[in-house]
Amino acid sequence: MARVLTPRAEDFPRWYQDVINKAQLADNGPVRGTMVIRPTGWAVWERMQADMDARIKAAGAQNAYFPLFIPENYLRREAEHVEGFSPELAVVTHAGGKELSEPLVVRPTSETVIGEFMAKWVDSYRDLPLLLNQWANVVRWEMRPRTFLRTTEFLWQEGHTAHATEADARAYARLIHKTVYEDFMVELLAIPVIPGRKTKGERFAGATNTMTVEAMMGDAKALQMGTSHELGQNFATAFDITYSSSAGGVQHCWTTSWGTSTRMVGGLIMVHGDDNGLRLPPRLAPVQAQVMVVKAGEGVIEAAARLRDDLAAAGVRVRLDDRADVPFGRRAVDAELQGVPVRIEVGPRDLAAGNAVVARRIDGTKAPVPLAGVVAEVTAALETDQQRLYDDALAFREAHMVDVPTLGDAIEAAQTGWARVPWSAVGTEGEAEANGKAVTVRCL
Amino acid sequence: MARVLTPRAEDFPRWYQDVINKAQLADNGPVRGTMVIRPTGWAVWERMQADMDARIKAAGAQNAYFPLFIPENYLRREAEHVEGFSPELAVVTHAGGKELSEPLVVRPTSETVIGEFMAKWVDSYRDLPLLLNQWANVVRWEMRPRTFLRTTEFLWQEGHTAHATEADARAYARLIHKTVYEDFMVELLAIPVIPGRKTKGERFAGATNTMTVEAMMGDAKALQMGTSHELGQNFATAFDITYSSSAGGVQHCWTTSWGTSTRMVGGLIMVHGDDNGLRLPPRLAPVQAQVMVVKAGEGVIEAAARLRDDLAAAGVRVRLDDRADVPFGRRAVDAELQGVPVRIEVGPRDLAAGNAVVARRIDGTKAPVPLAGVVAEVTAALETDQQRLYDDALAFREAHMVDVPTLGDAIEAAQTGWARVPWSAVGTEGEAEANGKAVTVRCL
Ligand SMILES: [Zn+2]
Ligand SMILES: [Zn+2]
Repeated sequence: MARVLTPRAEDFPRWYQDVINKAQLADNGPVRGTMVIRPTGWAVWERMQADMDARIKAAGAQNAYFPLFIPENYLRREAEHVEGFSPELAVVTHAGGKELSEPLVVRPTSETVIGEFMAKWVDSYRDLPLLLNQWANVVRWEMRPRTFLRTTEFLWQEGHTAHATEADARAYARLIHKTVYEDFMVELLAIPVIPGRKTKGERFAGATNTMTVEAMMGDAKALQMGTSHELGQNFATAFDITYSSSAGGVQHCWTTSWGTSTRMVGGLIMVHGDDNGLRLPPRLAPVQAQVMVVKAGEGVIEAAARLRDDLAAAGVRVRLDDRADVPFGRRAVDAELQGVPVRIEVGPRDLAAGNAVVARRIDGTKAPVPLAGVVAEVTAALETDQQRLYDDALAFREAHMVDVPTLGDAIEAAQTGWARVPWSAVGTEGEAEANGKAVTVRCL
Repeated sequence: MARVLTPRAEDFPRWYQDVINKAQLADNGPVRGTMVIRPTGWAVWERMQADMDARIKAAGAQNAYFPLFIPENYLRREAEHVEGFSPELAVVTHAGGKELSEPLVVRPTSETVIGEFMAKWVDSYRDLPLLLNQWANVVRWEMRPRTFLRTTEFLWQEGHTAHATEADARAYARLIHKTVYEDFMVELLAIPVIPGRKTKGERFAGATNTMTVEAMMGDAKALQMGTSHELGQNFATAFDITYSSSAGGVQHCWTTSWGTSTRMVGGLIMVHGDDNGLRLPPRLAPVQAQVMVVKAGEGVIEAAARLRDDLAAAGVRVRLDDRADVPFGRRAVDAELQGVPVRIEVGPRDLAAGNAVVARRIDGTKAPVPLAGVVAEVTAALETDQQRLYDDALAFREAHMVDVPTLGDAIEAAQTGWARVPWSAVGTEGEAEANGKAVTVRCL
């Protein structure tokens, strides 16, 4: 069989791009650094979004929508941010057929506008906490774009909340960090993450504390899958978000912000993919089971359709592939590439013996199963393989992470994986030294 | 009681804006013509989106995502469109800290990019039909903005499909027109719509047929709630979307496109709103029932919480309002403004008699109901009032629409409502004459 993908061991970044192209997850857009998310990739993002949105709502936040365009002067308000974003900004100078008197920035985040409106909407302690979230596209000009991981336009959610006290803000940031981000990565994406805090040097501008969930990719490198920030009263002071307390007197609010993006799709590919393509966690997979007609024959299409109906009735997200005029091998390779967790192959020979073949993408097994047992077999496999994917990723991470006593050891170990080292052996100076050698302190 | 809203009869456009502000549906954004959709407004759009998305998927289309930025030369490809859009475009000239060699247009629609990618993705008849949909923000510079109805940035879905034959394309455009648009408006929004065709003069550029769903607002004017276009082979010819047929030989595809937007939220307000605010159809309402603690007292909060739990268990989307420190009258006015279909008011006096008061927003009735009967009463009211809202809107439309024999009569009748007149009495010349008097032929 012809090689479909560059093997990971040969060239991991190339393998990554191959998976995206061959599994039809995304194409490059006409403008450099932008992407077209194809239906197969979009279905994955859509399911991520739905699950995370439910968690955000369970945490009490409400969705809202703020405009794409931001007057340029807004980004001058917070000096620290201009420095951070300026080269990243896309600027609209012409609209309505003429030059604008003030240029408009395409939002790199909505935080400035959200800050302005929070200040308007919060009046008394009764208006707190104000818990907002937005799902939107944002633009940050990207010099070295990589599909899903770093794109000029990307999709994300950004949460912004205002609270009456530091303790409330801290507790809320931690609630999001744990029940929205960490649990989502573990339970839905089957990705083991290390939750923790960023060092002062790696913290978000204006944050008093930045929490991160870090995952190890298949090349033993780290990817930041989401961050939550406690902003103290810094943000509220910059935007004048104040409230009158129950005791009387006006106070600045304590705020938080938190975000995740389409970058998670990239992380998912890099954690679970193998040399045959993507492997989707069953709970996430838009199509959990694909019933395939191997080739036409007596009763084959009817049997396949019946299995499809039985699986759907059992709550499985199932697709019937009855394109008998397309070679079976090609269709099976495509299903592997796209990471469909289970294939149920129905052909004349197996059917004559009362069987279908159940092929599991995650553990790679393939065996005939009596027709009457297919539903039970598939539902059990989906459960088992969700856990197995997590266990595999965890075992990989453990195998590539060492405990070391000194900074020198840590820098050496970081060449092939992660190192866990006491912060007392690193410190701010040690962090600078490590950064000089292209090693970052990801997580405290 | 102080007047909360301008009465509709006094100034309909002013009433519309009052409802949006007072019900906290949206605010004006910092850039003229843009809007901030607040949680109350967003929850309505989110439910519209979820329901319509399910209908789109049931019709077999798949979601995808195309980039925000379009190279300026793309919009020169179809001459007709440049003329249509040019003054409406917002143009990015600077990004990455420097001037771009080619300006980028912020998408006024994604059709040019989607056309390009359809051409790439369609190869043989096996790739057809290709049924795509996108949910996204688009920008069209707006000189006379009005919240939800005409905004510089708005949110919409745009569907684009390619088919092997004219008959397939036509059948699909009609399927969308009927099962996605018309049924959605009637069943979810409780808005009676007149489905029909646009005249040649009102047709979308490039379309061989444009279908529309038109609704009558509370001021007896018409609003176009959605359109579906058959594009013949025009679009496929412009973008070179071809396929090799099963018989051999290369053909241009037949395509369709169809769209609805946040404008529907504006239509909803204008059809169902009254002088006390919005009235939400129960099936759409994010909060169907609000249990309110009238004032604190022996067992009141406990009884209210129990009703909330019982209603939730019965599948009602319910919210508990136990803010006993905010005057009840103000909270009741807010619930009316926001259009919550049913309020269940729990106070010490009613509770002593074993009752709660059930207040229905849509028919305006208010009556005590024994606690044990509240769930049944509320679920029945939600069902009845969904239908009632539709019946009221239909009766209003019938009362403002007359059948007339001649164009002259139609122009006169259009001053206070709609007129139905035989097309043979109008024709293209008559249409021009009517247009000259600010009367449009909405629908054939
Ligand atoms: Zn201040
Ligand atoms: Zn052509």
